[in-house]
Amino acid sequence: MDRPVIRLRPKADVARIRRGAPFLGPQDLVLDRRARSLAPGTIATLEDATRAPLATVAVAPEARLAARVLDRDPAATVDDAWIARRIERAAALRARLFERPFFRLVHAEGDALPGLIVDRFGDAAAIQPNAAWIDGRLGAVIAALEGLGVERVVVNGTARARAAEGLPDRLEVVRGRVDGPVEVPMNGAVYLADLVGGQKTGLFYDQRENHRFAAAVAGPEVLDAFSHVGGFGLAMLAGGAERATLVDASAAALALAEGGAARMGRTVETIRSDAFDALAALRSEGRAFDTVICDPPAFAPSKAAREAGLRAYERIAFLAAPLVRPGGVLGLCSCSHAADLEAFRAASLRGVGKARRAAAILRTGFAGPDHPVHPMLSGTGYLKALFLRLA
Amino acid sequence: MDRPVIRLRPKADVARIRRGAPFLGPQDLVLDRRARSLAPGTIATLEDATRAPLATVAVAPEARLAARVLDRDPAATVDDAWIARRIERAAALRARLFERPFFRLVHAEGDALPGLIVDRFGDAAAIQPNAAWIDGRLGAVIAALEGLGVERVVVNGTARARAAEGLPDRLEVVRGRVDGPVEVPMNGAVYLADLVGGQKTGLFYDQRENHRFAAAVAGPEVLDAFSHVGGFGLAMLAGGAERATLVDASAAALALAEGGAARMGRTVETIRSDAFDALAALRSEGRAFDTVICDPPAFAPSKAAREAGLRAYERIAFLAAPLVRPGGVLGLCSCSHAADLEAFRAASLRGVGKARRAAAILRTGFAGPDHPVHPMLSGTGYLKALFLRLA
Repeated sequence: MDRPVIRLRPKADVARIRRGAPFLGPQDLVLDRRARSLAPGTIATLEDATRAPLATVAVAPEARLAARVLDRDPAATVDDAWIARRIERAAALRARLFERPFFRLVHAEGDALPGLIVDRFGDAAAIQPNAAWIDGRLGAVIAALEGLGVERVVVNGTARARAAEGLPDRLEVVRGRVDGPVEVPMNGAVYLADLVGGQKTGLFYDQRENHRFAAAVAGPEVLDAFSHVGGFGLAMLAGGAERATLVDASAAALALAEGGAARMGRTVETIRSDAFDALAALRSEGRAFDTVICDPPAFAPSKAAREAGLRAYERIAFLAAPLVRPGGVLGLCSCSHAADLEAFRAASLRGVGKARRAAAILRTGFAGPDHPVHPMLSGTGYLKALFLRLA
Repeated sequence: MDRPVIRLRPKADVARIRRGAPFLGPQDLVLDRRARSLAPGTIATLEDATRAPLATVAVAPEARLAARVLDRDPAATVDDAWIARRIERAAALRARLFERPFFRLVHAEGDALPGLIVDRFGDAAAIQPNAAWIDGRLGAVIAALEGLGVERVVVNGTARARAAEGLPDRLEVVRGRVDGPVEVPMNGAVYLADLVGGQKTGLFYDQRENHRFAAAVAGPEVLDAFSHVGGFGLAMLAGGAERATLVDASAAALALAEGGAARMGRTVETIRSDAFDALAALRSEGRAFDTVICDPPAFAPSKAAREAGLRAYERIAFLAAPLVRPGGVLGLCSCSHAADLEAFRAASLRGVGKARRAAAILRTGFAGPDHPVHPMLSGTGYLKALFLRLA
């Protein structure tokens, strides 16, 4: 095959690659001058130290993920049809799971499309190309999406990962028009997602199953702290809660939450505030709720931030527990890669214990099935949700 | 208070008890002649080594769980009203979660009723009294159930745990009549539960959420290995599968599954066989399915059985993976206390890998919320379910 070759070092773990490792670091590869001259995103054949071909990879010689395995077939041709087939495979799974086209359509390695994330919002889609190989092939991605009925496409190239592969930031509508927020139906609620001005792609589909559980268990009065556009709060309203209070530091997010509630024919109480401060203030006001959910941003995004992050999770639990009526439910979430389930659970339970409340664990939830996880990339993923009944 | 006292040894971990430990072993307690003379099930006041009261406990001096903490209030009176309050609290949670009264109503320590399990089947209930203190107070349990609308009650005292507290085996209908299997609606399917002749209480509610996911993701042709009364198979039929094949070694269980299917107006293919043999045979016949679920009995019920159990889980995955069509889903379950999630997942993925199939993890599921878990009794519980998409 007339394409570059990249070779494993003799000491690299070949068995791990044969078992399906999704990427290799610089320590695994012979990065000589020839290899280093390859442009980020170049498709190459990975060979072992004896020159036996192993896989088809995309290389980014200066990046931490120096080679991403695209196909375990070393003779695979990665062309537009190959990309279309992978996207169609991802779409077939979602078609089984969901009645309407609102979901994460492509979840990177979990859908065998390393570095590519696509969220679908009805006739619109938001693409996050976080690797050079796919950034250079966006035409094929967009064409495949159009084949699935997508008419409006936003390219959201704002993730930090892009810099490592030499990619500039970009945020651009590349097909159709996106004039305002998109309406997203989920779990009986209506959300407004701002595809061009919001956080990431404007809505987090990963919490769908946890939203649903919160909706099922919600009592009459509920609190959604770190609400963003109202993920948990609006789901609980749809599930039977009578009054929802939403706390977020972002006025824009709260305005979208209010807009979603209005489309449901409902209203919400919003508190624009740092959520730590708001939880403490609600307590000093003597407020109490049947269900309290805290879904903060990642407090432990990296190993260096792990200890401080766990202390923050403990503090959230300590501040939130007193707001839960006896017999009510406290939902605590973490989207921190560096805080594993056990550490997050222990921190949360410490906080609840310091608030002198006895807890039973009702549910341990992860990201939904439109976020498939590559088996060698941490078993249960970044997102953890704990639901506790407090006596 | 005029009741016995049981005292902690000076070296016992008092902090752990203050944090809510649900029981204590003989090594924690002063088990002198006086303590040893207490009948199993005696309610006592737990004191620390300085004679400060700590909690209200039920003692069983010869058992591994020598003292079970009933109430963190050392002055609590454990009478019929106390038992009724705990059962009502458990019922209130289920009333929020479920529309119809088919669920585990009391899940032992998770519902602050150590040693007591109650499953509710509409107007019937099955009680498992697995500790002497509650075995001696069944009248209060039955009265509380009658207050919730239960008319028929089975006492199922067949668990091994009873012997440790000096309790004999019993299996008895103590209220109303139970003439045949009970119909149980769940996830749109209908199951037949044999409350007096089946395994445990005749139906496993713990898999409800995993059944539901299997139903949502099921393709047209599905296989349910170790089907028992058809838990996964019938749910998948209700969820849209066209043809279901059920494998179980028990003719009685398969007959109940067929009966449930008939009440749904459906039929199932049943294979009465050891499931390992059946999986191998289906492969040699060239059979393939869109969705395959394996929910075997506990292969690793104890630490001693752990390694052999994990090999059995690996073998199940190895035998089942080839039966899954490309793009289909393989669901693998473990109800082994001694196989934790990571070990079970690793064994399952090894088996899939040996079958040369690439997998992505769609869902990691546990027991449903009618099985609350005491926070100090292993975080995620005994039941694990992995759903893998196989390329």
